[in-house]
Amino acid sequence: MEFYSGYLFKGLSKPQLDVVARIAKECSVEIGNEIFKEGEEAEKLFILRKGAVELATTVEKGFELPIALLRTPGDIFGSSALVPPFKYNLSAYSTEGCILLTIGQTDLLGLMNEDHALERTVLMNLAAHFLDRLKETRDELKIHFKILLKSTRS
Amino acid sequence: MEFYSGYLFKGLSKPQLDVVARIAKECSVEIGNEIFKEGEEAEKLFILRKGAVELATTVEKGFELPIALLRTPGDIFGSSALVPPFKYNLSAYSTEGCILLTIGQTDLLGLMNEDHALERTVLMNLAAHFLDRLKETRDELKIHFKILLKSTRS
Repeated sequence: MEFYSGYLFKGLSKPQLDVVARIAKECSVEIGNEIFKEGEEAEKLFILRKGAVELATTVEKGFELPIALLRTPGDIFGSSALVPPFKYNLSAYSTEGCILLTIGQTDLLGLMNEDHALERTVLMNLAAHFLDRLKETRDELKIHFKILLKSTRS
Repeated sequence: MEFYSGYLFKGLSKPQLDVVARIAKECSVEIGNEIFKEGEEAEKLFILRKGAVELATTVEKGFELPIALLRTPGDIFGSSALVPPFKYNLSAYSTEGCILLTIGQTDLLGLMNEDHALERTVLMNLAAHFLDRLKETRDELKIHFKILLKSTRS
């Protein structure tokens, strides 16, 4: 169960994790592949089992801003598959050969419908995760404002 | 029920909204008051009934960055009261005299525990809201990068 250690599954019991593991499928991706693209319909959630994945967002044609490099087994990406409007909000690339676990949106939402405690835990974790990323992104924005302030003053 | 039109309650039925309205309390705040401060324990969620509220984050001592100005009755703020670590992630100020509805964290989490459909709807709305704000903030960050790119090229 070492691959179910990511933020989304925090607080789930061993039997709940077993049920989640049963709906996961394994796949491998060669180095340098696009796993999904920003804006695409998000139908699957991904768990990194082996390798490394870069998440990035397009700033303008030909320039992508890297947002995160995932390399810890258990790292989760593509979680916007669980939230309306169900579209990936970043692009994902394999920067090494990867083994991934995928969980279908319909399968996970189905599980959540059957087990309300699991549903609450997963949705709370998801909201907390997006709030964390929001705070992080605001902090980055603040750095830019500080640089602007400094240059205005000098 | 016109004050329960905010993002958090989207998709709730009339009877569910009635139950939410029953745990809300009204209070008034004079112009120019701090309603809560970034980093404080978040024990209440707020709904704007009348007036205007500015949300802001501290960039450095003496400089706050305005994030949003709420002036539509039904606008919701302080929703980080529902998510770990239960701390306000922005400061809120009344920029006009305000009438607010407050909903205690324990009361709302209690309701959610009793009605799983309500719980699912509220948590999904919350996650979708934070994801929206995250995308918005990333878009602002992109503008800064575009300005940087332009100045490097010229």
